[in-house]
Amino acid sequence: MNQRDYYRWWQRADLCYRQNQLFFAGRSVQRLADQFGTPCFVYSAARVRDNLQRLHIALNRAGMAGRFTLHYAMKANRFAPLLTMLKQTGLCGIDACSPAEVEHAVSCGFTPEEISFTASSLSSRDLEVLARYDGLFMNCDAIHAIRRWGELKPGSNIGLRVNPAMGIGRADNEKLQYAGETTTKFGIYQQQFPEALDTAKQYGLRVTKIHFHAGCGYLTPQLDQLERIITRCFTFIDAAESVERVNIGGGLGVPHLPDDEPLDLDQWAAMLQRRFGARNLHLEVEPGDYIVKDAGLLLVEKTFAEQKRATTFVGVDAGFNIAPEPAYYNLPFQPLPLRYDGDSACEPVTVVGHINEALDVWYAGALLPDLGNQGHLALINAGAYSAAMASNHCMRGAFREFLLM
Amino acid sequence: MNQRDYYRWWQRADLCYRQNQLFFAGRSVQRLADQFGTPCFVYSAARVRDNLQRLHIALNRAGMAGRFTLHYAMKANRFAPLLTMLKQTGLCGIDACSPAEVEHAVSCGFTPEEISFTASSLSSRDLEVLARYDGLFMNCDAIHAIRRWGELKPGSNIGLRVNPAMGIGRADNEKLQYAGETTTKFGIYQQQFPEALDTAKQYGLRVTKIHFHAGCGYLTPQLDQLERIITRCFTFIDAAESVERVNIGGGLGVPHLPDDEPLDLDQWAAMLQRRFGARNLHLEVEPGDYIVKDAGLLLVEKTFAEQKRATTFVGVDAGFNIAPEPAYYNLPFQPLPLRYDGDSACEPVTVVGHINEALDVWYAGALLPDLGNQGHLALINAGAYSAAMASNHCMRGAFREFLLM
Repeated sequence: MNQRDYYRWWQRADLCYRQNQLFFAGRSVQRLADQFGTPCFVYSAARVRDNLQRLHIALNRAGMAGRFTLHYAMKANRFAPLLTMLKQTGLCGIDACSPAEVEHAVSCGFTPEEISFTASSLSSRDLEVLARYDGLFMNCDAIHAIRRWGELKPGSNIGLRVNPAMGIGRADNEKLQYAGETTTKFGIYQQQFPEALDTAKQYGLRVTKIHFHAGCGYLTPQLDQLERIITRCFTFIDAAESVERVNIGGGLGVPHLPDDEPLDLDQWAAMLQRRFGARNLHLEVEPGDYIVKDAGLLLVEKTFAEQKRATTFVGVDAGFNIAPEPAYYNLPFQPLPLRYDGDSACEPVTVVGHINEALDVWYAGALLPDLGNQGHLALINAGAYSAAMASNHCMRGAFREFLLM
Repeated sequence: MNQRDYYRWWQRADLCYRQNQLFFAGRSVQRLADQFGTPCFVYSAARVRDNLQRLHIALNRAGMAGRFTLHYAMKANRFAPLLTMLKQTGLCGIDACSPAEVEHAVSCGFTPEEISFTASSLSSRDLEVLARYDGLFMNCDAIHAIRRWGELKPGSNIGLRVNPAMGIGRADNEKLQYAGETTTKFGIYQQQFPEALDTAKQYGLRVTKIHFHAGCGYLTPQLDQLERIITRCFTFIDAAESVERVNIGGGLGVPHLPDDEPLDLDQWAAMLQRRFGARNLHLEVEPGDYIVKDAGLLLVEKTFAEQKRATTFVGVDAGFNIAPEPAYYNLPFQPLPLRYDGDSACEPVTVVGHINEALDVWYAGALLPDLGNQGHLALINAGAYSAAMASNHCMRGAFREFLLM
């Protein structure tokens, strides 16, 4: 990667250098780091709203106005102020996957009617809690799940999560295969679908929704594959007579590298209109990453810069345990200096954390200028699956979060 | 794998079937699950003590009596009752890697003198806390670290963590490479070692210890490689005139699969005696996994058993977020039924958790009998890097821990 690319691909009006200072959400990032201390996550409410609005605009423009609903996948980031802000936008409901998530979403202002619930391997205790939330919409992902929900809520409307046995996602990322050739725990396969419909009927459950989620992190080049998956799912939709809604899950990707082109939302929405436009079906989408990932920065303090053999390391005061995607999922969070003139020569450095594990590397080959007395770095794309997945490994779990309004 | 192997390799006096009931630490595991609820971790104090004693016995038998110290790597499991029990055995000190770990170890009864501290990327705040604990032994892993500790504690004794640029560990596990050909953040390399010694001298620091940690999970077949690494480290030891102690890190492995032979401790100890016996050096070892991994079970409730396509899935009420090694590190935790007669036919099933992620698979191909009305499973080898690395991903972070005395 060259220096120009490193500093260009992620820049946008609300995340860029102005007079050599990194600005985010209208604030000097240096000011934020000085004020809040590190490590801390800062989230831009405006960027979150923009991301949501962009999806609305694309779907409306494609002719889907009034025929779609967005559910924010709260597992991506459950920071309470963020959830309440999302509720107030009126632009989305919630995709929840555990009883505690339902309770938390409700505690932040969402009503059960705004929550779509999809999970696997629910215990009896889980089901007891969920059954208390009248209006919660249950997507059953297996035959036993239909039976148990039928016992608790006979006669209700349900969704069936199906598995099209076709996957999608960022290339070469086997960690994120939900629905490929290997049989997974997710959803009901074609082979068991007739039995699933029969089971629903036994309990007087009305199957009003088909749900599927075929992977994550997809960008424009993967849209053809998404269309093929949707096409295959019509087999399920057509077999279940009472279907009114189709939930196509999440998975909309965000660029992580200079070569990643952002997802072309118009192309995405046009494809959805092409597939669903002629059918009397309400579309649901469950984005997580797309809404919050690029709306969050992780601010860290530089702890050292030192050469070991031929490699220069820059250490920071946060490890992969508070944001596991770079270490575990090969999804890099690019580090940026808080001051940069755009021209000074940069050298490749490896940015590392303070955890005693070999995989605690934030970024190998970060192109940073001589940091001199600069005391901080910002890691971009840290808004999703970071704080939400944090652990206290090595007792290094302390961090704070701030919603910037 | 065949059924006989699946049920044989892990059995031992304190973890075995008796009259068809799984027993652990002298208790019926079914009784534990009924009493404590799930998910829960249970740790056997006796097994922990046995593991420690086995190391002492092997080293004594090899002729190292009075010339070695064990430091338990508390990052493996910091459950407070476990730490206090370890302190009371008098068989080990602590290996700590963060200020919070030092504070926690002291809160559990260890004195600073019993704590060996090794970490990288320490912040100024970290150093301020550490400097308060007089007697804490600091191993510096880089030149900047020597300088900063020298400013805080001029004239003190320190260790230098070095990097022999040779790795060791379970085959094919690139996640666990600490010191291979790729330059890592860990330790001081040969190239920078003279500068490190000079820096120590500038601050009047006396280098009394050389520390290295070359990998983890090693079993008997890797002992030759460990010996080669130790041999190489004598270059560092001999170059630093005042060295009295050598800390060879941790890394002693525990079998995870039927084909894994347990580490031959006599062979291990004989090799250490061969390398260190003729030298006036005190040996330190920092085991974590070896002390606690096989002393812990994760007890879970069965949530369902259902066939999807040709695969039978058994679901449980715990996901990889509370014990990440199977999902992230390819270290399987074998599931066991709490009742088994030893003969009934078993079928391969895939045991999965309740997290909405493709990698939430506990074990593919577990050989389980028809579970009928059995409501629980036990996952073995869950005593290390499980609860200690737990996250609240999907808000599924609830679990409890019990020390069985």
